[in-house]
Amino acid sequence: MPYITLEEHLPGITGLLEYRKDTAHPIRELTQLLLRGPSSLTEGERELIATIVSYRNECQFCTSAHTAAANILLGETETAEKIKLNIGSAPISDKMKALLTIASQVQQGGKSVTNESIDEAKFKGATDLEIHDTVLIASLFCLYNRYVDGLSTITPTITDFYQNLGHRLKDHGYNRLPEGYEHLKKRS
Amino acid sequence: MPYITLEEHLPGITGLLEYRKDTAHPIRELTQLLLRGPSSLTEGERELIATIVSYRNECQFCTSAHTAAANILLGETETAEKIKLNIGSAPISDKMKALLTIASQVQQGGKSVTNESIDEAKFKGATDLEIHDTVLIASLFCLYNRYVDGLSTITPTITDFYQNLGHRLKDHGYNRLPEGYEHLKKRS
Repeated sequence: MPYITLEEHLPGITGLLEYRKDTAHPIRELTQLLLRGPSSLTEGERELIATIVSYRNECQFCTSAHTAAANILLGETETAEKIKLNIGSAPISDKMKALLTIASQVQQGGKSVTNESIDEAKFKGATDLEIHDTVLIASLFCLYNRYVDGLSTITPTITDFYQNLGHRLKDHGYNRLPEGYEHLKKRS
Repeated sequence: MPYITLEEHLPGITGLLEYRKDTAHPIRELTQLLLRGPSSLTEGERELIATIVSYRNECQFCTSAHTAAANILLGETETAEKIKLNIGSAPISDKMKALLTIASQVQQGGKSVTNESIDEAKFKGATDLEIHDTVLIASLFCLYNRYVDGLSTITPTITDFYQNLGHRLKDHGYNRLPEGYEHLKKRS
């Protein structure tokens, strides 16, 4: 049960973003810019950064939601599962391996990011902006994971919920849906 | 030395907020709402939440900046130092002790927040919104601390720098200052 009174039909982050809409607005805007804005990283790659951080923070709601979004964007379900087990042997580019390693270090703490992991990312072709965005996306999901679990929000156990949410995140991104969007949630 | 090329005269978070201004905008807006917007917690109390989280994340830049802001807002330098050593014996209200305990749990991870600490906060008079805002402020500083240290930004060692920054945060908050604000940084 959530630690504060939230709308019962809105689990995880969704109830929190409705609880305080003024703070939700910049959180949504930041996420939209980082995960859906112009970038040399694909939307799928950026969802993998969100996924690995949420997974390592053991935030079940965010891990399930962003795994679903990554799977839909990548068109397969293998990669997101493999990065959780072992970044080094996952079917992704060497640059992405280096960036996900940096993201995992950010999850532990800012000071955990090493010179070596940054050098490796640059050696594999990562730009300053890609490194910046990786660190900021990882930091943002450290916020999300704490917000969601720190207030003990509800974590649905039905796979369909996350599949629907994943489609919504692919089709509509992170901006607030206009009134009357309920049908989008029920997409099968 | 920072891991990416930042403007040399802008240490800590300041260089990052200039590096990518589009993402800086919602970060600033969220911080302004949470730390300076209408609230039943004083601005000094909210800066103490930022301070304890930054201190426990060992982010020297953020700890120094928000300690300075808290000191200026509270009109004394004792409280911010005492909460770092022991929340329970610091000269703050029982409600603030409970909220800073929750913030410290959020710093460890979302799942570290206990039923007991939430019950204690409510028993001492904390509202749902105060608990929400405490968790979100603590989560936001987990983002900031990782952003600042994860990119290895410069940490000034001169006390005056943080004193000036603290005054700026008190007088002008977290919104971007208009062009030509350089004189404010040099305030003595």
